[in-house]
Amino acid sequence: MSTLFLIPVPIALDSIQSLPTETVEVARALDLFVVERSKTARQFLKSIAVNKAMSEITVLEIDEKDTRVVDEALRSAYKEGRNVGVLSEAGCPGIADPGASVVTIAHQIGMRVRPLVGPSSLLLALMASGMNGQRFTFHGYLSPKRPELMRDLQRLEQQAERRKETQLFIETPYRSQMVLEVALDALRPDTRFCVAQDLTGAGENVISKKVKDWKMAGAPVLEKAPAVFIVYRN
Amino acid sequence: MSTLFLIPVPIALDSIQSLPTETVEVARALDLFVVERSKTARQFLKSIAVNKAMSEITVLEIDEKDTRVVDEALRSAYKEGRNVGVLSEAGCPGIADPGASVVTIAHQIGMRVRPLVGPSSLLLALMASGMNGQRFTFHGYLSPKRPELMRDLQRLEQQAERRKETQLFIETPYRSQMVLEVALDALRPDTRFCVAQDLTGAGENVISKKVKDWKMAGAPVLEKAPAVFIVYRN
Repeated sequence: MSTLFLIPVPIALDSIQSLPTETVEVARALDLFVVERSKTARQFLKSIAVNKAMSEITVLEIDEKDTRVVDEALRSAYKEGRNVGVLSEAGCPGIADPGASVVTIAHQIGMRVRPLVGPSSLLLALMASGMNGQRFTFHGYLSPKRPELMRDLQRLEQQAERRKETQLFIETPYRSQMVLEVALDALRPDTRFCVAQDLTGAGENVISKKVKDWKMAGAPVLEKAPAVFIVYRN
Repeated sequence: MSTLFLIPVPIALDSIQSLPTETVEVARALDLFVVERSKTARQFLKSIAVNKAMSEITVLEIDEKDTRVVDEALRSAYKEGRNVGVLSEAGCPGIADPGASVVTIAHQIGMRVRPLVGPSSLLLALMASGMNGQRFTFHGYLSPKRPELMRDLQRLEQQAERRKETQLFIETPYRSQMVLEVALDALRPDTRFCVAQDLTGAGENVISKKVKDWKMAGAPVLEKAPAVFIVYRN
């Protein structure tokens, strides 16, 4: 039966060992992919040494505003009993990344959908934070500017307290330092705050403690690496 | 440096191929574990063919109400520069499972915390649902009884609409059928509803469509397998 495979890719440089054999084997066997970005998708496929020429592999980019090309490709694949892979730039397709629209089309057509195991910075950060993994919310990106970010963080702190729910968000690497500074300013001393950087990578670093302990130690200078931030109160 | 490794285990029978080589290698090398349940932890360690006798491996059960034994064990390990593994019964430690208290102790002591990659039914279900992975909340278990469950589901539906946020929850296998019936009763026709069962297992099945389409097809008889349920409106 024609299947749409959701294929996670590494989230850090040279971290191919973070993928299960099954995930790599499935990616190796396919010749039709729907992807976030062609260039990185082809780089990934080369890195796992697919056993065919790159010219034999079709790679279609996802356009969330116009899904017609992907829709047609999936319908043809379904009719031909052909399997299709979905690849995002890093991590799991559809999680803080494009891919959901492709999966929705597959369900509409009646294609089988198989999610494969691989790295997700959100999930790894939540595990490593020591915070409540029984209830949590992921917010995507918060406001990029200081005053609005301050208010966002205080709202998250209130939600964490009221619902006993861990609050996660992400930010682009070059803004990590600013987020840390605003968080230490905005949050109450006994609120727990976690920064998880470069997960699965050579510079992996998870710091998780109360705001007052962050302040006591002096805010560190963060690397410009991908980061997940987490807020909780218990 | 003494490290606490968070080690995911398979979530379905005979699905060891869902673990990355790195995760298995780390588990094989350790001889001290803090676990949700000794019996299943030892079964897992046997299944990956650890290269030492089971009698050489120390396994401590997590007691969320009394963390003294684990606290002492981690402090000794830290002093001796020894590494420790955390194992839950299925999936990722600390995610909808015990483990967070252990991680919190490690951060307090100053141990390094390294989360390893492996299967999470929540994350796989979210990927496979085709729903919004940019904003989502995991609620754990909802109310077990019909009238309260009905209200819970309508609350989730409202949250999904108001916040444009995907809503996830879990339930024990023998209640899956009841949850499906109540959901089709409680939710509005154009709300999207997903049931993801036995992920990574032989009976893996993900159904994701609007409530009206569930009703049109007739509610299927669900297997008594672990399930993740997802609600969204867009």
